[in-house]
Amino acid sequence: MIKTDMLIIGAGPTGLFTVFEAGLLKLKCHLIDALAQPGGQCAEIYPKKPIYDIPGFPEILAGKLVDNLMEQIKPFEPGFTLGERAETIDKLEDGSFIVTTNKGTKHHAPVVVIAGGLGSFEPRKPLIDNIVDFEDKGVSYIIKDPEVYKNKRVVIAGGGDSALDWSIFLADIASEVYLVHRRNEFRGALDSVEKVAELSKLGKVSLITEAEVTALQGNETLEKVTVTHKDKGEIVLEVDNFIPLFGLSPKLGPIADWGLEIEKNAIKVDNSYDYSTNIPGIYAIGDVNTYKGKLKLILSGFHEAAVMCQSAYQRIFPDKKYVMKYTTVGGIQGFDGTKKEAKKEVVKSIV
Amino acid sequence: MIKTDMLIIGAGPTGLFTVFEAGLLKLKCHLIDALAQPGGQCAEIYPKKPIYDIPGFPEILAGKLVDNLMEQIKPFEPGFTLGERAETIDKLEDGSFIVTTNKGTKHHAPVVVIAGGLGSFEPRKPLIDNIVDFEDKGVSYIIKDPEVYKNKRVVIAGGGDSALDWSIFLADIASEVYLVHRRNEFRGALDSVEKVAELSKLGKVSLITEAEVTALQGNETLEKVTVTHKDKGEIVLEVDNFIPLFGLSPKLGPIADWGLEIEKNAIKVDNSYDYSTNIPGIYAIGDVNTYKGKLKLILSGFHEAAVMCQSAYQRIFPDKKYVMKYTTVGGIQGFDGTKKEAKKEVVKSIV
Repeated sequence: MIKTDMLIIGAGPTGLFTVFEAGLLKLKCHLIDALAQPGGQCAEIYPKKPIYDIPGFPEILAGKLVDNLMEQIKPFEPGFTLGERAETIDKLEDGSFIVTTNKGTKHHAPVVVIAGGLGSFEPRKPLIDNIVDFEDKGVSYIIKDPEVYKNKRVVIAGGGDSALDWSIFLADIASEVYLVHRRNEFRGALDSVEKVAELSKLGKVSLITEAEVTALQGNETLEKVTVTHKDKGEIVLEVDNFIPLFGLSPKLGPIADWGLEIEKNAIKVDNSYDYSTNIPGIYAIGDVNTYKGKLKLILSGFHEAAVMCQSAYQRIFPDKKYVMKYTTVGGIQGFDGTKKEAKKEVVKSIV
Repeated sequence: MIKTDMLIIGAGPTGLFTVFEAGLLKLKCHLIDALAQPGGQCAEIYPKKPIYDIPGFPEILAGKLVDNLMEQIKPFEPGFTLGERAETIDKLEDGSFIVTTNKGTKHHAPVVVIAGGLGSFEPRKPLIDNIVDFEDKGVSYIIKDPEVYKNKRVVIAGGGDSALDWSIFLADIASEVYLVHRRNEFRGALDSVEKVAELSKLGKVSLITEAEVTALQGNETLEKVTVTHKDKGEIVLEVDNFIPLFGLSPKLGPIADWGLEIEKNAIKVDNSYDYSTNIPGIYAIGDVNTYKGKLKLILSGFHEAAVMCQSAYQRIFPDKKYVMKYTTVGGIQGFDGTKKEAKKEVVKSIV
């Protein structure tokens, strides 16, 4: 059982900065994230894209913002449970919570902060009626272990970087690779587009464009994929695997069943005070919450984190009064023994 | 008459960042500040001090934060009225406002945003009953023109950098300089403390420590200053000038008389929506406002600015619907013709 003062679900920019604000109040934090590394969307989806609206940065790459936040919170020694998704929550008699992940890891804390962004990112699925019947029986939305496709006949669908990159990679492993895309144009790195064109000429990737996969057939496992071409009609391919790579789409996930008040796929909070949810002891900050006038901006998550931490502190220590000190005046005392502070003025006797 | 979309009173970090958020909505801003340069306290009081709690900056000097914000808002071409204090506000029939400064400069805008920080900084005055009678008649709290003190007998009071620095400077100009301080210890740059000690030995500055100025006398102008020493009792000095340098203390100033709802020397706003004040069309953001759970943090001012701008936009264009675009997706279109945007993916036909 992992024990902490504040359990943060979601290690995106908002969740990360929460560690800092909590640290100023001497509260320890532990973060859970379904992704394998901290940073949320900024690290997973667009690390190399510039963001222009973080105050004080005329321009910063999303990945660099995450790096900076990791450095900023380092003195407060956050714990991480990564690559696991928060599944269930139980409230104990003393008002504290136990949160269990899909892998069974248990976390115990008096305060839970949901900083889950737009939710956990799940693959977009094509609209084929019986596709769920073949999931893990030939159909996969994510490639975890490429060796699975050794000497298999594989259909990849999609027109972006993932579809291009995996077609290139599997061309060397699978016995046949079909790449099906609705348009002639692919959207991805120039290198990848050119490489796929070359593999197509060499017959190592069979390109089927202006077409889409419209039906799946098989007994125990996937056996046939029907591709419908704009002009040529239906083509039936005998294959072992179908891998639709249509990107990731955010879903609130299991949190939606925790008894929280949900509105427009987001968690309703009290923005007039402390970003608390309808369940005392659970807060929601950043893109995952909603209230009148809500803006899904990273900078709003930062503010919400700071305000929320004050309320969480009062919940954890109802009898203590916290007097806020500016970091410029009081400095930063890390849990790791580090200390940062402004140079003090010289005090000296003249007489 | 200066005309703009949003008139911002206060050019500290919050006021400056407002220009950026307004710019994204294609609203033009003009800022008024009593100080001679933008940046508020960060630029005037502690430019060389590090701040540790700006999200994404493990450490940044206050002056550097101001420089960064100035660069970030440059594409949106803000106007500035500096070194003037907003004095009066008049509401026109169409709901717009005219704000006039102490120097008579008039500004016209449909929306007024007060981002005045802790207020305008005014000198701390010593508690001497009749001190106001001698203001500008021998008593000054700020040294505007040192030549005024040429060949005068001057008493400076205080134990910080200002008192030390001006004692050093006036030692060459005035005929006599007394430096009165309650303690033996001075708090300032080491150089300054040592220089004053040297001037004291040379008889160019008369140090009177463990003492304070307790009474003033004179007819038309100041003639005598009574200094009370801890042990030795009263000393009467025949002098021309008394300059108490006890630092600056923030005052809400003339804004306090604009009919806004004031609580604890701050402006009450609706934090459950848009940081509007009790007067429609006037908003208050940053340290100048108050609401339940308010934290006087720079990062909170940034969030408040973003949220407020959306509401201000609706007020200025009641019939337009603004759809928020992320800067990472839509880029930044400067009013000055500049454009920043993320590199687009390559779109290329393979077939």
